[in-house]
Amino acid sequence: MLAQRIEEVTKANERFYEAFESLDIARMDQVWAHLEYVTCVHPGWALRSKWSEVRDSWVLIFNNTFSMRFALSDVTIQVAGDIAWVLCVEHITSQQSDEPQEGTVIATNLFERIGDEWLMIHHHGSAVMGQ
Amino acid sequence: MLAQRIEEVTKANERFYEAFESLDIARMDQVWAHLEYVTCVHPGWALRSKWSEVRDSWVLIFNNTFSMRFALSDVTIQVAGDIAWVLCVEHITSQQSDEPQEGTVIATNLFERIGDEWLMIHHHGSAVMGQ
Repeated sequence: MLAQRIEEVTKANERFYEAFESLDIARMDQVWAHLEYVTCVHPGWALRSKWSEVRDSWVLIFNNTFSMRFALSDVTIQVAGDIAWVLCVEHITSQQSDEPQEGTVIATNLFERIGDEWLMIHHHGSAVMGQ
Repeated sequence: MLAQRIEEVTKANERFYEAFESLDIARMDQVWAHLEYVTCVHPGWALRSKWSEVRDSWVLIFNNTFSMRFALSDVTIQVAGDIAWVLCVEHITSQQSDEPQEGTVIATNLFERIGDEWLMIHHHGSAVMGQ
């Protein structure tokens, strides 16, 4: 049961990064719970609360990004009942303008099991200094 | 029941910031679960996993800080079973050397109900850009 849930959360976390790489808001819509209490912190940004505000932040990022590729490391997953939290290090190659950029971000991702789906309810990404 | 749990988590979160302000590792010891799966990200730092590593990071911070004061805003608390997550904005006045510094950090704090106590299992703090 726990092993199965960890596998489900692993997939939900992968789906999040695939949606992020796709730069397609329709795919990000499928990853998140569309609820009042969802929250999101992008590296250096202020806190966004409520799905409508969180969604706006993704639209803004997707509109200003040409490409985004993630390699994950140090993924740890904990599940307790219908809540799961994932810690991971995102090694990012992105292109906002001409020059590709590399960066390292640490993420806290929270998922909630709603119906038979694990949906994202919180994402907190922050840059690692000197990387 | 939910209202009571939210009040308990509010107090656990306040205890964490009081322990942080005290710069006393014995008080931080009381706030955290001493478990393998606890994790901590300080602003700009790499991920720390396991209580021994998390504790070391607090010792390092406390040894290099003269004073630390927090004013919290935008505190939101969610509870699901024995897990709770708190989002808040930390308005910090700190002193590492001669000059007091001001800063703004967004924090994701996770707590787990163990026995009849809410103990911290994850702290992720990250600086807000331009503040």
